[in-house]
Amino acid sequence: IQTKFPTMGTTIFTVMSALATEKGAVNLGQGFPDFECDPKLVDAVTEAMKKGLNQYPPMTGIAPLREAVASKVEALYGRKYDSASEITITAGATQAIITAVLAIVKPGDEVIVLEPCYDSYVPNIELAGGTVVRVPLTPGTFRPDFVKIAAALSPKTRAIMINSPHNPSGTVWTRAEMLQLQDLLAPTDVFVISDEVYEHMVFDGQLHQSAARFPGLAARSLIVSSFGKTYHVTGWKVGYVAAPAVLSAEFRKVHQFNVFTVNTPMQFGLASYMASPEPYLQLPAFYQRKRDLFREGLARTRFQLLPSEGTYFQCVEISKVSALKEDEFCKWLTSEIGVAAIPLSAFYGNGFDQRVVRFCFAKKDETLKAALERLAKL
Amino acid sequence: IQTKFPTMGTTIFTVMSALATEKGAVNLGQGFPDFECDPKLVDAVTEAMKKGLNQYPPMTGIAPLREAVASKVEALYGRKYDSASEITITAGATQAIITAVLAIVKPGDEVIVLEPCYDSYVPNIELAGGTVVRVPLTPGTFRPDFVKIAAALSPKTRAIMINSPHNPSGTVWTRAEMLQLQDLLAPTDVFVISDEVYEHMVFDGQLHQSAARFPGLAARSLIVSSFGKTYHVTGWKVGYVAAPAVLSAEFRKVHQFNVFTVNTPMQFGLASYMASPEPYLQLPAFYQRKRDLFREGLARTRFQLLPSEGTYFQCVEISKVSALKEDEFCKWLTSEIGVAAIPLSAFYGNGFDQRVVRFCFAKKDETLKAALERLAKL
Ligand SMILES: CSCCC(=O)C(=O)O
Ligand SMILES: CSCCC(=O)C(=O)O
Repeated sequence: IQTKFPTMGTTIFTVMSALATEKGAVNLGQGFPDFECDPKLVDAVTEAMKKGLNQYPPMTGIAPLREAVASKVEALYGRKYDSASEITITAGATQAIITAVLAIVKPGDEVIVLEPCYDSYVPNIELAGGTVVRVPLTPGTFRPDFVKIAAALSPKTRAIMINSPHNPSGTVWTRAEMLQLQDLLAPTDVFVISDEVYEHMVFDGQLHQSAARFPGLAARSLIVSSFGKTYHVTGWKVGYVAAPAVLSAEFRKVHQFNVFTVNTPMQFGLASYMASPEPYLQLPAFYQRKRDLFREGLARTRFQLLPSEGTYFQCVEISKVSALKEDEFCKWLTSEIGVAAIPLSAFYGNGFDQRVVRFCFAKKDETLKAALERLAKL
Repeated sequence: IQTKFPTMGTTIFTVMSALATEKGAVNLGQGFPDFECDPKLVDAVTEAMKKGLNQYPPMTGIAPLREAVASKVEALYGRKYDSASEITITAGATQAIITAVLAIVKPGDEVIVLEPCYDSYVPNIELAGGTVVRVPLTPGTFRPDFVKIAAALSPKTRAIMINSPHNPSGTVWTRAEMLQLQDLLAPTDVFVISDEVYEHMVFDGQLHQSAARFPGLAARSLIVSSFGKTYHVTGWKVGYVAAPAVLSAEFRKVHQFNVFTVNTPMQFGLASYMASPEPYLQLPAFYQRKRDLFREGLARTRFQLLPSEGTYFQCVEISKVSALKEDEFCKWLTSEIGVAAIPLSAFYGNGFDQRVVRFCFAKKDETLKAALERLAKL
């Protein structure tokens, strides 16, 4: 058959998780926790199912969950979203992002992505008929380079996709950087798709600088987050989008014909769970401890540690350990050493290889220790 | 802002359900049951969550659910799909259909839809940059007209979307009709997207003629179905696609960047439930009884009954009851009589009004009786 995507492969996360399973490796590749969520959350979903809440919810999501999101965003970032017209519940952040792209990007529009970036962004833009404009983050530090971003703006620019805390690098944008972006976009009509799925995982006392904090950005932004990442239930596939009413209306036009709605019992469970005192407030300390445990172990290996300011990822430079290319190294590490990792080259269109790989530390301490024991052999 | 879809509205199902709620009407509009699913299914999901099955499942769906689908399709329709490479679990049938469209339709391709059709098909094709070619089903009987379909085929035709049992009309394609489609497409490269979400609701001893039964169709078909419709859990948003490996591979390329995966505990719950003796076998009799109860009541009103061979929908002609246009009539019926229905015009691009509206009879007997009592006043 004459296929539409002859060169598109399978997402790296699936490939590496399958290899990890096949080889019995400790899976620090794909980003998901291997510990359990709060049992209260499971009980809340069970209760919803037993109450018979198993049919279609409203297309935009159930009101109590939209309200819980609006309250959280206001409490943390000081912006009041109208829960009825400005918050939409999605089938995970990935679905939120493609829906945002399909809702705003017209054929021929340019969309700026900052590389390295999550591997769905570029195919999403291409599906919408948009032109991908790749701007590298500063090599080595992964910080935004506003000279380069400014140079990439054109009259055809429809949107820019940003992501802080940043997957895979663990960089967290500063207030100054967000202000620079706000100033840069002020004279334009460019929309922002702000992927903030790791918003609750920011370390060392730094603050998450949500686009919601910056009026000039919030007015043009679709902000995406994930209940799965936040509450240790990545398999539940529930996320949300917060955006001004006019943008939310456009988003919902596509959403209704993409998934229509999102799992009812999970929505009720999450809403009732979020009504308990801010369950996300412990997260930074919880993950910072895991990061520190993992970094201490890695410091005793020949990997060179990069900073991890946020997310649940830790990147390392591999030159002193291996001469292999990143992707070959990850396969070798999974098969021969028994630890799965993700090559950063998977986050670049041209497969750029900077000898850096990503580990996920959202794991039980014993899992991290088992991985460290294996890595110590290198 | 310069929006991408200035004229696109909100799906009729959302509009009518909202109005029904506001007016306290009996909601026979949007298609979903108001009775509970089998408690065993709820228990199976709870068990999965308690076992800690709350993280990302494989991108294509969990193996036991894919296997359960493959077994069912083989048992009922005699075609063996490879569960690893030919079955993909989706976030409901709506997501399956848009993903199929995005995976195969390229800008400029023509896609044939048979009107009246489900309201997501046309926006899905337009999002993919395709050209919608509308072919009417035979007025009055809603049967496929192969002369018209043949005339609509062109070298640019990439796909045809079919749907039996048919929403909204309740028509079920015969074996002869499926064979006619197979013959018509034999000399072409046209793909078929076969929406079979009501496959288990076919009445009066008729058989569901799945595309899977016809080798010449199956080889070119993406067959879509829904666990939500089948097991009375429309809010769980789980469906599947069965397609030859080469088509499934294309489907998965888009699927992974649309939702990536589907709710893990619901998948495990459904897989364990389907392992019990074919829970779907009682469905035709179960819904036929409801159809008959509802038809008997409607026969005592001034509505004119159309046939309902399958689905959980019953259409009626309204001329003897009202001179209003269909959509105005449905609003009036909801607000003034307290029964919500869906106008057939919502399933046509040009709003074609044939004085027919659709009721959903997937309701408790007491709900159907309450609705009939109100309708008897007309
Ligand atoms: C959707 S699977 C990938 C999970 C993730 O966000 C990552 O590993 O980067
Ligand atoms: C996805 S909401 C609509 C449910 C349905 O299939 C219908 O009512 O036709």
